[in-house]
Amino acid sequence: MYLEKINCPIDLKKMSMDALPILATEIREVLINKASVFGGHLSSNLGIVDATIAIHYVFDSPKDKIVFDVSHQCYTHKILTGRKDGFIEPDKYSKINGYTNPEESIHDYFRVGHTATSISLACGMAKARDLRGDNENIIVIIGDGSLSGGEALEGLDYAGSDIKGNLIIIFNDNQMSIAENHGGIYNNLQLLRETEGQAENNIFRAFGCDYRFVKDGNDVASVIKVLQEVKDIEHPIVIHICTTKGKGYSYAEKNKEQTHWVRPFSLQNGEEKNPFNGERYDRIIRDYLIDKMKADSAVVTMIAAVPDALSFSEEYRKKAGEQFVDVGIAEEHAISMAAGIARNGGKPVFATMSTFYQRTYDQISQELCINMAPATLIVVNASVYAANDVTHIGIFDIPMMSNIPNLVYLAPTNKQEYLAMLDWSIEQNEYPVAIRAPRNGVFYAKGEVDSDYSELNKYKVTQEGSNIAIIALGDFYQMGENLADEIVFKYGFNPTLINPRYITGIDDKLLEQLKNEHYIVITLEDGVLEGGFGQKIASFYGTSTVKVINYGLKKEFLDRYNVEKTMEKNRLRIDLIINDLDELVNSNIIV
Amino acid sequence: MYLEKINCPIDLKKMSMDALPILATEIREVLINKASVFGGHLSSNLGIVDATIAIHYVFDSPKDKIVFDVSHQCYTHKILTGRKDGFIEPDKYSKINGYTNPEESIHDYFRVGHTATSISLACGMAKARDLRGDNENIIVIIGDGSLSGGEALEGLDYAGSDIKGNLIIIFNDNQMSIAENHGGIYNNLQLLRETEGQAENNIFRAFGCDYRFVKDGNDVASVIKVLQEVKDIEHPIVIHICTTKGKGYSYAEKNKEQTHWVRPFSLQNGEEKNPFNGERYDRIIRDYLIDKMKADSAVVTMIAAVPDALSFSEEYRKKAGEQFVDVGIAEEHAISMAAGIARNGGKPVFATMSTFYQRTYDQISQELCINMAPATLIVVNASVYAANDVTHIGIFDIPMMSNIPNLVYLAPTNKQEYLAMLDWSIEQNEYPVAIRAPRNGVFYAKGEVDSDYSELNKYKVTQEGSNIAIIALGDFYQMGENLADEIVFKYGFNPTLINPRYITGIDDKLLEQLKNEHYIVITLEDGVLEGGFGQKIASFYGTSTVKVINYGLKKEFLDRYNVEKTMEKNRLRIDLIINDLDELVNSNIIV
Repeated sequence: MYLEKINCPIDLKKMSMDALPILATEIREVLINKASVFGGHLSSNLGIVDATIAIHYVFDSPKDKIVFDVSHQCYTHKILTGRKDGFIEPDKYSKINGYTNPEESIHDYFRVGHTATSISLACGMAKARDLRGDNENIIVIIGDGSLSGGEALEGLDYAGSDIKGNLIIIFNDNQMSIAENHGGIYNNLQLLRETEGQAENNIFRAFGCDYRFVKDGNDVASVIKVLQEVKDIEHPIVIHICTTKGKGYSYAEKNKEQTHWVRPFSLQNGEEKNPFNGERYDRIIRDYLIDKMKADSAVVTMIAAVPDALSFSEEYRKKAGEQFVDVGIAEEHAISMAAGIARNGGKPVFATMSTFYQRTYDQISQELCINMAPATLIVVNASVYAANDVTHIGIFDIPMMSNIPNLVYLAPTNKQEYLAMLDWSIEQNEYPVAIRAPRNGVFYAKGEVDSDYSELNKYKVTQEGSNIAIIALGDFYQMGENLADEIVFKYGFNPTLINPRYITGIDDKLLEQLKNEHYIVITLEDGVLEGGFGQKIASFYGTSTVKVINYGLKKEFLDRYNVEKTMEKNRLRIDLIINDLDELVNSNIIV
Repeated sequence: MYLEKINCPIDLKKMSMDALPILATEIREVLINKASVFGGHLSSNLGIVDATIAIHYVFDSPKDKIVFDVSHQCYTHKILTGRKDGFIEPDKYSKINGYTNPEESIHDYFRVGHTATSISLACGMAKARDLRGDNENIIVIIGDGSLSGGEALEGLDYAGSDIKGNLIIIFNDNQMSIAENHGGIYNNLQLLRETEGQAENNIFRAFGCDYRFVKDGNDVASVIKVLQEVKDIEHPIVIHICTTKGKGYSYAEKNKEQTHWVRPFSLQNGEEKNPFNGERYDRIIRDYLIDKMKADSAVVTMIAAVPDALSFSEEYRKKAGEQFVDVGIAEEHAISMAAGIARNGGKPVFATMSTFYQRTYDQISQELCINMAPATLIVVNASVYAANDVTHIGIFDIPMMSNIPNLVYLAPTNKQEYLAMLDWSIEQNEYPVAIRAPRNGVFYAKGEVDSDYSELNKYKVTQEGSNIAIIALGDFYQMGENLADEIVFKYGFNPTLINPRYITGIDDKLLEQLKNEHYIVITLEDGVLEGGFGQKIASFYGTSTVKVINYGLKKEFLDRYNVEKTMEKNRLRIDLIINDLDELVNSNIIV
């Protein structure tokens, strides 16, 4: 095996050109094997193996600096830069993460995971280089849908005029985003492919960048040839390489969307090894929306390149027809477009991950909330239980979104409530509404749920009690129930249990009433405490004798964390909360 | 006067073509007169008078729907749609605001003020129209720098492929942003102007949009001719019109940047009537940065199309040379580029308004904070005392930014402290740092200020006292001083006064110590309370006997507000705070 001998890019450079395609095949085998056991980005990485080999063959990393967009296509880069054990040896699979990471290697410059930032990062590196008079190559690898993100276009625009030195942007054109591509750019790319780069109105040249076309980006020699020609070039240039997503694994080539990111699967037929067959909110909401759209042609389901947020596979996208909009990776556009739909009589429902709402804070505030545009935003993966890569964690949306005026941010606690809130939101015409999808499993309501949520900030007392009140938000409501039971068991009285439902405001009247027979208020929330929900309750009671304990997560970037340990560290466990209560009750603070 | 007879677009349509240029001249006179007395966007509006007349002459507003980007160029539109009194009659000048406003007129669809959202909003309106089977024209007016914003490019990209019906995008090419244009697009536009729309690599066509060129966009007849041809067109088209910014007022034509937005000025020579000649932070910081850049070639001052944020007029931009970067209206790119500069040995200092940081939340979180890139962000107009249009108010940045992990957000209270913090931030290599520029005037330090801020979250006790502690953040520190004096006068004891300096964390040790001799803690902050600074203090003391009162602004979108009344409403006045204290002291809560 050639791969055995490669511990750094210098080892690669010693290889003959003839051996490189064999090395590529070896790497593909490693990628497929690991993904089948461990999961990860599969077809994205299979397509870029050859070009990555070419890049390390031609350039001198780490002196020359390589920036990956999103960095989900960096596996081959990791394998070639001293981290192959993390791909070959099963007991080391978890040591190497799925995105670039400067802590792992001097060949990585950034921790990234969101789209469309690479050209801008590289422009900064080029600027710093030019100011100190150095001459290293700065190389960007972008593609697989990223180009439609506004920041990538801002980056191209800046590079095309204001970067005077070297900047090599390798655009991996695999004709795909996560799902199919959307946007006029992709028609332009198709023309460029059809004409081998000769078509009119070249998007890259329009931005002022130089341009080269590589017909077969899966042919190492072709890519090497062009890269050798452009190495040390003294202006920005885009190298448009055409590759096949999933290359070398027939199942992946045929199922590009399904294999973009995979869970452990069978090598024989590509099927997921341990599929979850229970109830899932993404599918529940998808099925609801399919029915809703059928009944009402004004309803539009919108996503920004992540149909997975609502399990809208191709079959369901087709069912929804013109009422389904995928804007591509363009969250800012999506939110403004939702505002436009809402203001012209439509009923837009947009869904994406908590972490991706960060890309459109301004549009939520300005286009939706100042304008009171009645759009519905579904916020998925908003939980300590969700994605755990540092770039994708979903525990920041409460401080980010709930402090924007006019937004009604709802936190359902069970299936019936989630559906009722969603239906109310779609039908009402007064407020922009966001709904935080629960992530702790699908629970059922114990009684009737309300169908009308227009009386804003009205909390629901689900269990009347005294002494202690538990305000348990969203998918931490079940923890609140368990805590209430433990309090009965431990102290012999019924505490009050409250489902606040609204993240964006406090129920002054109820909180005032609680002062009568309660001396402790506990808040529980599935997100960072700082700037979040519970601190508003603490502020409310600041001048009263009621004691408040806020439970939630500490403000920090977690990475590949163990949920239980993280919960424990934040005292988010019934026994630890009871300990805190014991301490408070035993101190002479409670009088 | 023709203008007298125009109360709605129907009146305009009755006019002869020959009369329209005369009407344009009348409107220009009105615009110049009002701006000279009242201030506002001047040269931006002077350039678009003729095209706006043409639009209302050809289309049927409000059936046909016009969306202005930023909407700072909407004055003529307002004059033609029943709001001319607000421009002609001095006592009505303040009735009509500077941006589109659906509350003013059925001809306005959105309240907007931030850049680059119009195409996306219009795509939404077009989508809703198509779903209900209607056929109104949707018209966008964009230009004056907006095109470089990523969202505008996302919008073009979407329109160019996925909008199947009518969408008419009028691109006002006045060769300017607020300052000069930046970005490769503008070179492309120059080629298009030089070739009357025939140049290769047409940026609009590259995105998939149809295209028409109008050489003289200040000639009403030319614009009308083209608009009549494209009215009811059944696909997206860009009409590229070339206009002169400041057209019709020679001072404005010669001083396009200075007259983009003006304060009241002399009609004779264009000079500002009541220039502020006292000390100003923008100039203090600019002068500091000019010296700093001279001494250290790694320092880069960056802005995103608003050189005013640091008073970097052309003269100073030239002085800074390659160490000054204006990325155009592209905040996302700016922040990622800053991260790239910082990670390649440079020392970036980026400045913009509080409200524009909203456009780059994700890059602050991901590129800067996850990566711990040591860039410096200066946050200006972050205050109740700053801009008061609903789209530009600066009271939301504390909840938005201070809850992002790893960011060190500093709040200087005087000139020496501001400069010391800035210098420390530029020289340190560990943290992304933001600095909230004070807005209540330039105060001087009463003693030495610290030069090192690396001991994070260490508050400074500026006056030792007992019973009551006042934690007064940033530019509300002086209010804290006044409150302390009043407490001495009223209650006869010295309260403790604290300058917290760090917005992003709490000084646990100091807060713990305060428990000993203090029974009330007051927090003061110049921003919304919800999710802000004071609520973290309230949460800290939630289980103690210390009472906490948080003062700041209620979460709401303020618009064209009176600062004193707003402060009063939020009890941000010494006498009102003393009343609250009286009540608390007289109640039996304090034991």
